[in-house]
Amino acid sequence: MRGSSPRLAEILAPIESPMKRMRQVLRSQLGDESAAVSDMIDHVERFRGKQLRAALVLLAGEATGNTTDEHAAVAAIVEMIHLATRVHDGILDGAEVRRRVACVNERWDNQVAVLLGDFLYARAFALSTELSSRLCSRVLSETTRRICVGEIHQSTSRYDFEMREETYEEISGAKTASLYAAACELGARYPGGNEELGRDLSTMGWSFGLAFQIVDDCLDLTGTEEEVGKSVGTDVEDGKVTLPVLYTYRKADESMRAKIRDIYTRPGLEGRARLLRAECDLEPGLAYAQSRARTLMQEGLSRLARLPLTPARASIEELAGFLLERSF
Amino acid sequence: MRGSSPRLAEILAPIESPMKRMRQVLRSQLGDESAAVSDMIDHVERFRGKQLRAALVLLAGEATGNTTDEHAAVAAIVEMIHLATRVHDGILDGAEVRRRVACVNERWDNQVAVLLGDFLYARAFALSTELSSRLCSRVLSETTRRICVGEIHQSTSRYDFEMREETYEEISGAKTASLYAAACELGARYPGGNEELGRDLSTMGWSFGLAFQIVDDCLDLTGTEEEVGKSVGTDVEDGKVTLPVLYTYRKADESMRAKIRDIYTRPGLEGRARLLRAECDLEPGLAYAQSRARTLMQEGLSRLARLPLTPARASIEELAGFLLERSF
Repeated sequence: MRGSSPRLAEILAPIESPMKRMRQVLRSQLGDESAAVSDMIDHVERFRGKQLRAALVLLAGEATGNTTDEHAAVAAIVEMIHLATRVHDGILDGAEVRRRVACVNERWDNQVAVLLGDFLYARAFALSTELSSRLCSRVLSETTRRICVGEIHQSTSRYDFEMREETYEEISGAKTASLYAAACELGARYPGGNEELGRDLSTMGWSFGLAFQIVDDCLDLTGTEEEVGKSVGTDVEDGKVTLPVLYTYRKADESMRAKIRDIYTRPGLEGRARLLRAECDLEPGLAYAQSRARTLMQEGLSRLARLPLTPARASIEELAGFLLERSF
Repeated sequence: MRGSSPRLAEILAPIESPMKRMRQVLRSQLGDESAAVSDMIDHVERFRGKQLRAALVLLAGEATGNTTDEHAAVAAIVEMIHLATRVHDGILDGAEVRRRVACVNERWDNQVAVLLGDFLYARAFALSTELSSRLCSRVLSETTRRICVGEIHQSTSRYDFEMREETYEEISGAKTASLYAAACELGARYPGGNEELGRDLSTMGWSFGLAFQIVDDCLDLTGTEEEVGKSVGTDVEDGKVTLPVLYTYRKADESMRAKIRDIYTRPGLEGRARLLRAECDLEPGLAYAQSRARTLMQEGLSRLARLPLTPARASIEELAGFLLERSF
């Protein structure tokens, strides 16, 4: 699944023109810097990804009949925050390739990746303070805090094979779903209207984001770099025990559990995810995770029930299906 | 020079009570988090430093007769942003000790240092969006962007012995003076009043910050870890060509220049700053830098001329002297 997927472009057709404006804002925000900065920015733009979070701001706005001249900027800000987390996540994950472009922290070093991420955060917040309403600054600074807490929690929960499923969802929720929730809430509410609708769309976004993360976790176990377009197997390398592994571990007998722990932890082992696939039957765990993702997406979509049948609402529904399909 | 200096406490006596409130805000902002986060926060608080930037918010407020109930929060936000830059700077500098407490990225790893810095930024911005005026969010997000650009510029200018002095001041200004300027501007103007006075105090803060950075650069060359309370010699290790070295290099003949370049760059060399001191006469460069710092402080203080003679104004003047003295 790539940023340039024709199917995705088709799904997002109702917001083609605001997405273009969003990209213009992004370019203008990141463009007018010194040579040293713009060299790095160029690099980041090439692995910009699917821009799903920006799309959800605009879709949530259109679907709820809440569109303003500032929605494109709000969407660009959400996308910049996402980019910042990805740049810093490059340091976190030890990921080697992202979107087929060498990760920032490989081409330059950790130092520069830290600074570039900080720059993206700062730019995002600076732009948000120029908007007519403070809602965007408020929602996104709180969301950024939540993402950090989720990442810190994840980092301190490595190799925790006894983790409760609720804890897994709490961590994935904070680190991934919270920005989806913020995107949908801002789309529906910005600059300030209809709190109830905002809550509904926020809940939808949360479910979407959590489902997205679960699918991502499955792909990290089963996908190839070629298919997924970024490093795979990094969760096992980094000691992250994701939902399909948690389920597999819970259902396994003690000898299989010992094997799983060994594959995660034995020093110097190469290709841990591949070994895990070869030595353990992950299928039930993967099926369980995918079923959970489907349930979450359905729960999320149920929040649209009160909205009129518009092309934007249809897009959100198709997007949900599209995001789930990529797990197969 | 330590955070607990009795002389500094004496100088800051006129703002003792708002500084206490500032520390309360800081504690409450960083206190109510999960165990994983608060463990790290505890660690950071122990190397909180001199809290000069927070002090300048409060002093600039008092000196201009502009104090509000929110000044303590503004000061805490400025301090959180400073803490965030320090935590990320720990990754940048390869510094081994800061304030006699192991640096975050030593006790934990780079990952956690990145996240903790991000958390501090996010918390700072979240708090700023809760204030009655947007001025704090606006000034500080722009300042943070500027700090990042300065750090990136510095990182791409390593080993540049031909750097113009203006460029050195531009970089040091962006990475250090900009937050001092923001602190003084916000103190004088927050929530929004008197733009002209804000500009005056901002200019004063900029001169202060630049002088502070120049003194810091001298101490990094000449100080001992014992005296300075943090790693020294890291600029030479990291290839940063600071003002005293720039001056020394400019005045040196070609054989001395080659020696300086060699000490900065020869692989595997230990104690580069010590070698530089032993092999080159740095005194004229240090004297030049200190004289520049003094001039800047005087320029900064001249901005106070229009203000009434209050204890806060006297504090700022004494603080300037105190910050310069530490270079000897």
